[in-house]
Amino acid sequence: MTKAPQGSAAPQQTAQRTVRPAVSTAVESAMRRALALAAQGPPHGPNPRVGCVLLDPDGRPVAEGFHRGAGTPHAEAAALAAARSRGVDPRGTTAVVTLEPCAHHGRTGPCADALVDAGVAAVHLAVSDPNPVAAGGAATLRAAGIEVTTGTLADEGEELLRHWLHAVRTGRPYVTLKLATSLDGRVAAADGTSRWITGPQARAHAHTVRAQVDAIAVGSGTALTDDPSLTARTIDGGLFEHQPLRVVLGRSAVPGDARLRGPGGPLLHLPEHDLAVVLGLLAEREVRHLLVEGGPTLATALLAADVVDELHAYVAPVLLGAGPTGVGDLGVTTIGAAARFTTHDVTRLGDDVLMVARRTQPVTNPQPAHARQNGRPSRPTKEEI
Amino acid sequence: MTKAPQGSAAPQQTAQRTVRPAVSTAVESAMRRALALAAQGPPHGPNPRVGCVLLDPDGRPVAEGFHRGAGTPHAEAAALAAARSRGVDPRGTTAVVTLEPCAHHGRTGPCADALVDAGVAAVHLAVSDPNPVAAGGAATLRAAGIEVTTGTLADEGEELLRHWLHAVRTGRPYVTLKLATSLDGRVAAADGTSRWITGPQARAHAHTVRAQVDAIAVGSGTALTDDPSLTARTIDGGLFEHQPLRVVLGRSAVPGDARLRGPGGPLLHLPEHDLAVVLGLLAEREVRHLLVEGGPTLATALLAADVVDELHAYVAPVLLGAGPTGVGDLGVTTIGAAARFTTHDVTRLGDDVLMVARRTQPVTNPQPAHARQNGRPSRPTKEEI
Repeated sequence: MTKAPQGSAAPQQTAQRTVRPAVSTAVESAMRRALALAAQGPPHGPNPRVGCVLLDPDGRPVAEGFHRGAGTPHAEAAALAAARSRGVDPRGTTAVVTLEPCAHHGRTGPCADALVDAGVAAVHLAVSDPNPVAAGGAATLRAAGIEVTTGTLADEGEELLRHWLHAVRTGRPYVTLKLATSLDGRVAAADGTSRWITGPQARAHAHTVRAQVDAIAVGSGTALTDDPSLTARTIDGGLFEHQPLRVVLGRSAVPGDARLRGPGGPLLHLPEHDLAVVLGLLAEREVRHLLVEGGPTLATALLAADVVDELHAYVAPVLLGAGPTGVGDLGVTTIGAAARFTTHDVTRLGDDVLMVARRTQPVTNPQPAHARQNGRPSRPTKEEI
Repeated sequence: MTKAPQGSAAPQQTAQRTVRPAVSTAVESAMRRALALAAQGPPHGPNPRVGCVLLDPDGRPVAEGFHRGAGTPHAEAAALAAARSRGVDPRGTTAVVTLEPCAHHGRTGPCADALVDAGVAAVHLAVSDPNPVAAGGAATLRAAGIEVTTGTLADEGEELLRHWLHAVRTGRPYVTLKLATSLDGRVAAADGTSRWITGPQARAHAHTVRAQVDAIAVGSGTALTDDPSLTARTIDGGLFEHQPLRVVLGRSAVPGDARLRGPGGPLLHLPEHDLAVVLGLLAEREVRHLLVEGGPTLATALLAADVVDELHAYVAPVLLGAGPTGVGDLGVTTIGAAARFTTHDVTRLGDDVLMVARRTQPVTNPQPAHARQNGRPSRPTKEEI
């Protein structure tokens, strides 16, 4: 850090704040741009979404790039190529990148080496790479004499890479459980009819989520009863370009004429009840984000095993009074042991509301629900209502 | 309506739009002010909330008033008094008032007569008075040669007077049913514990609603089991100035040491199961807005009788998997017969969401739920999911 000028009357704090403000503002601004670039990459797929902006020594952006999906150049390589294509020598630039540059040889060379070879002077990154295969990029850069600053807009970087980071850190996919219920928690009427509880806007939203995930899972009972297609469809009924892997969990066979065998993503039937095994198999197939759409048996098993990372609860202003609920017995007997999530976002969709709620405490290993502590007394005191 | 000038080249529509724009803008602006004034009156109590603004012949506001509750001057009288107190002669002014001026002798004289006596030249009103006792104000005014225009900002006027208009039109209170549930529709865990499913912001909001209604009802079973106080409390635990009537419905007696007998509104025990009789008795006591807080038996009976006008559903990002639901059997067997409401407002309250949903079709007479039609097929076709 540059020292305050000798003889300055200003206290040190003020001096620090006035040191290189243009550059630090430029770095933060470039990181925001890099995050926005990264978000243009596909949310699905095995690779993280990454964006990169190159700044000249005066803090002016001179080139940018982002990763467009597996098999295409990484963000750093794209930014360096963009610089060279416009005749800008990347030597002496500062690379602002959303994720620690990789140090491994995949389908493309290591980004850390590319930055060193290009003569980049400094690197700012938002999130360190937890991937043991790819990590070490910052060390490579520092060993080459490049100044590396970590944690710039780290929260935003974590949010962007939420599913991928979770998968890399825990070795299992990020699990989003979708529920579409009446206000009294029912997923169908007493006769089993359920089309439709929620309205068209909610259903269209659910399809856009399908188009963002790697895989959708249902239980084999639901596959038989509902004959779902589990495709990601546009509001005019067409298929989105990306179709997630369709996963059926459980022993019942998928009939030969099932919609699941029709147009859409590949079908994977796992006649396996051990959820740790299932999630491990999906992780091996590079599934980072798994959307679970039911039915109640599968939802209950995932919740009881405490492997649900996010809830997407579409709630309709409808009361049924009878019919199956979306979630069965979780082994919760008292209010203090409830499965509590933290609300991330609330969106009105026509007459319905979408509540996105996340696991309150990050966990790295699945635990049974009864072992979870959430800091609430299991025997509430008698309070006035 | 003033005609377009003879010989004007402008088409008639344009001509109409340019007629007296300053005055019509002034009236609408004054009505918005009158509505805002009206909203300063108490939302509870037997009388409607009314606001009044007097405009001089150039459309400038010269005085205003609103009704502050039973026993105080009506809005028109307050505005006329305000004009005189500042030396303004109301003769020739235009009165802009949110509700048709009354024509009956209550604790104060008829407002229509007061406007006639004051020499007001014109009256604009938002909502006509459906009250057979008070109606006829517009006719009185017109008979005296005053120009009366109805329906100015009528929707806003209806919204402001929603509960009162409902009570006057149907002869029964506007019924708001409060539900506080987990995402799977449960109001308590399997052991009956329920404190707390929702968080402090949701509970504080519910208390502000209590402070706005005329009465709160619970079933006598809930009164025994939960020993609620049913007071409207501030976040520091104090009592709001207005405390609603506390109503217990059902045969079980209210114990002598019940909190319901402690500080708060008066207690009314109605050992009556016929809801039409109950609502009639409450209407006779001038209850315009009844808030029902449970339990499930009472909520179910009201829904099955189709007398719930509005739902306040506080939903927490919590899953219980077992425990009582907020609503019991409604006689709904198929999705097409579901009790559907129309969402009016969605508000996030901390981790919880409040969904305010209203009766989809206004009704004037209670109907059993199975007689209701909502335009959906009772046998849905098989569609793709």
